[in-house]
Amino acid sequence: MTLKTGCHRLMHTLKHQSSMLGVRSRGHLLVRRLCDLESKTSSPSSPSSWFSTGAALNMRLVQFSDLRGGPVRLGVQPQQDGEITEISSQGGNGKIPNDLVQLIQGGPALWAEAEKAASQSTSKAQAKDVKLLAPLINPGKVICVGLNYRCHCNEQHIEPPHEPMFFSKFASCIVGPTDNVVLPTVSTKVDWEVEMVVVIGKPCRNLKPENTMENVFGYTVAQDISARDWQKGRNGGQWLLGKSMDTFCPLGPAVVTADELPKGPHVLPLSCAINGVKKQNSNTDQLVHRVDYIISHLSHLLTLLPGDIILTGTPAGVGVFRNPREFLKPGDVIESEIVGIGKMRNPVVAPQ
Amino acid sequence: MTLKTGCHRLMHTLKHQSSMLGVRSRGHLLVRRLCDLESKTSSPSSPSSWFSTGAALNMRLVQFSDLRGGPVRLGVQPQQDGEITEISSQGGNGKIPNDLVQLIQGGPALWAEAEKAASQSTSKAQAKDVKLLAPLINPGKVICVGLNYRCHCNEQHIEPPHEPMFFSKFASCIVGPTDNVVLPTVSTKVDWEVEMVVVIGKPCRNLKPENTMENVFGYTVAQDISARDWQKGRNGGQWLLGKSMDTFCPLGPAVVTADELPKGPHVLPLSCAINGVKKQNSNTDQLVHRVDYIISHLSHLLTLLPGDIILTGTPAGVGVFRNPREFLKPGDVIESEIVGIGKMRNPVVAPQ
Repeated sequence: MTLKTGCHRLMHTLKHQSSMLGVRSRGHLLVRRLCDLESKTSSPSSPSSWFSTGAALNMRLVQFSDLRGGPVRLGVQPQQDGEITEISSQGGNGKIPNDLVQLIQGGPALWAEAEKAASQSTSKAQAKDVKLLAPLINPGKVICVGLNYRCHCNEQHIEPPHEPMFFSKFASCIVGPTDNVVLPTVSTKVDWEVEMVVVIGKPCRNLKPENTMENVFGYTVAQDISARDWQKGRNGGQWLLGKSMDTFCPLGPAVVTADELPKGPHVLPLSCAINGVKKQNSNTDQLVHRVDYIISHLSHLLTLLPGDIILTGTPAGVGVFRNPREFLKPGDVIESEIVGIGKMRNPVVAPQ
Repeated sequence: MTLKTGCHRLMHTLKHQSSMLGVRSRGHLLVRRLCDLESKTSSPSSPSSWFSTGAALNMRLVQFSDLRGGPVRLGVQPQQDGEITEISSQGGNGKIPNDLVQLIQGGPALWAEAEKAASQSTSKAQAKDVKLLAPLINPGKVICVGLNYRCHCNEQHIEPPHEPMFFSKFASCIVGPTDNVVLPTVSTKVDWEVEMVVVIGKPCRNLKPENTMENVFGYTVAQDISARDWQKGRNGGQWLLGKSMDTFCPLGPAVVTADELPKGPHVLPLSCAINGVKKQNSNTDQLVHRVDYIISHLSHLLTLLPGDIILTGTPAGVGVFRNPREFLKPGDVIESEIVGIGKMRNPVVAPQ
């Protein structure tokens, strides 16, 4: 066990014991400082410490349709823009649903069938001949973590919250990795937020942090598009409406299963560019509350179910805290990328 | 057109024009005062003014299973505790799904099939031989309106909000009309809130208030169970976690289609009793923002879809604002009733 993993384990134990009762532990803060110091000098934590998934799958999954529309199809695409092998009924063995949420809900036995279908399917499609859809269309919960990068807290001159804070988006605002973000008529302050997304694979209830990661199915990328004038100062302070307008959750381009990230989820460069200019540029090693702790914390409050997704927060560089402020306008193009997962490209269009 | 309906139409027009831009209209306040005065003296508004649904259905729908569990079945039960006629595949004509959300999403043609199935089915069940389930198990959105009864605002010494305020619950906390409410280990301040629920029947986007009611499929009853110590003072002020713990949304016992309420949704006595003692006792005529306005307002912010539900707010009498404060404890029984829809009875049990 490295010093860092030892620090994190001690921190998690202390946080786990104190957080549910609302106790701010001095020990926890001390350990966090140690970890902060340590993280500047050490290599990323070893895979074995962060990463022990029970997933049978080891693949990069996409949902797609014909260019003109038609039914949703499920496939594997090992490389972005590369060939897609269909695994849902048309191309697979007939056992795999054409919906990734349903595949995840089917559990490890169905995941093994998906892996078999991927190796046997002869139904291939070239990326240019299909339209990529959001890899998850109707997740049961879209949970978002607020204020979860130190740099994003710094840019608004606030302390990172002691315990993770959560809000939600409605699943109806999910769109695909190349779809338009449609500016709403009711807002003039629409902003970007690139985020890493955790996809839950197995039910999570009352889990300790060290037992969470085997319940992660995989990871993807989201834009947590936000109407700042509705997020704050309206709706009684509840962020929901400012976060849930139609098209406010581009998702994709793929779900990579947990095994596809051998170093775990906390070493991934992520960035957001507007019209080719990089606005956000950070790394998931900067997360205040890490994936295992987020899942553990949530699992003491409610049951996480297969197919639920968690948007883990955004780093610094959003428009509202820039000087001068910047907001999305028609004609902009949002590029959102996490190395090891993929890149989305969403044009911004005028209200419709 | 009665004076009251004239008032409401004028109010809606003014609200509609001013609210989206955040303008507090003096005219709107004047009209509201007129309406308040008028509502104390007049009879309920005429059905034709409030109520023009396009629903083909005229029935009281329930979901149920065998007493020992098994698959979900869909039926009609004209009277609470009365005989149930199954309309899903086993008892119907094979065209009706065993899931009310899917039936609603099927649209008017499928609703007509459901009506036919109800008149033809010979599969009958007695209430005592089945277990009633929540009438909607996976609605796409569970939208809640906060602070939407004057009396509930009065008991916490605040003004009703000028525009409706919304938060959400996760659908995973929905349970049936006789299921246990399980107290969570992490809260000591769990409270009750009886609410009327609107079930959306058709997509709603950019609707004027006068065009909303034909998009309502029906109505049901909910308990918006709330962990007060998590709703406020934690989670960065976002209510989501305090509202979404497992079992925090008893729903049912039935969805009555809009046509079943000939005087519309704004004349319904609703009440909540704990251990037989009435704690909340009001009428939906006390709603600050009415169903048509809520739907219109929301429809300018996001698209409402068939099967979405809206909890319309709770009247005075919740535990946290009583003197002394009261919270739910193991052994309590919560009875939630709306006359014309039905009554739920949910036992409260210790953390599990």
